[in-house]
Amino acid sequence: MGADSQVESGLKLMPKFDVNGLLPCVTIDAATQRVLMVGYMNEEALRLTISTKRATYFTRSRKKIWVKGESSGHFQEVVELLVDCDQDCIVLKVNQLGAACHTGFPSCFYRRLKPGTEEELEFLGDEKQFDPAKVYSV
Amino acid sequence: MGADSQVESGLKLMPKFDVNGLLPCVTIDAATQRVLMVGYMNEEALRLTISTKRATYFTRSRKKIWVKGESSGHFQEVVELLVDCDQDCIVLKVNQLGAACHTGFPSCFYRRLKPGTEEELEFLGDEKQFDPAKVYSV
Repeated sequence: MGADSQVESGLKLMPKFDVNGLLPCVTIDAATQRVLMVGYMNEEALRLTISTKRATYFTRSRKKIWVKGESSGHFQEVVELLVDCDQDCIVLKVNQLGAACHTGFPSCFYRRLKPGTEEELEFLGDEKQFDPAKVYSV
Repeated sequence: MGADSQVESGLKLMPKFDVNGLLPCVTIDAATQRVLMVGYMNEEALRLTISTKRATYFTRSRKKIWVKGESSGHFQEVVELLVDCDQDCIVLKVNQLGAACHTGFPSCFYRRLKPGTEEELEFLGDEKQFDPAKVYSV
């Protein structure tokens, strides 16, 4: 097999990080299949996610390793890790403790484009799981 | 509301593209909720996706607008478009015609990390929907 073929058809994890050393990770609730968030991982974050079974990202804003839940307690326990055809993207199925989003909503995707419009949003109607003002004022 | 607050709590689509003018799009099968693929959109691709109701991406390799299915016939009909808290990522729920992945698998995520291992993959057991050799040798 050529290198491309091994990436697509092989049985070895060969993650392809981008020019910044990152790959996107789509994190999904294992119970409901709902997309909770999209984060980024560098090589260390991916290795830690696999070895500790806790979702670990690299924050592009703070430029550091970030164990999801380390300050909020809202950890994500890894259930399954999928990789795509060219191994430049991960899907992570997790058991989410608390809420995934810093706003208090269970998922970061709490709004959708209002049907029939081109730039108007509407809330999906989720209930907030916590009050972010209280969490972040500690 | 401040600008950040409008992005998070407002009802106007205010997509935040990255330094390359792109944002990631997680495309999901509307019927099964399964993640089909992750693609990228520039402003034009996002506008076309919304106005034509056919998923349209920007290919980073070929650097052009790409209507998914334009060569294969495997179009994605948009059912719902979600945006995340900071509006730098999209979830697109679609009716997938044919298969999402160029390999013939229904989803690009056809392998997972084998439980108990750190870099060994296993196939999920999906059946290929078409033979890519036949499609791409035309």
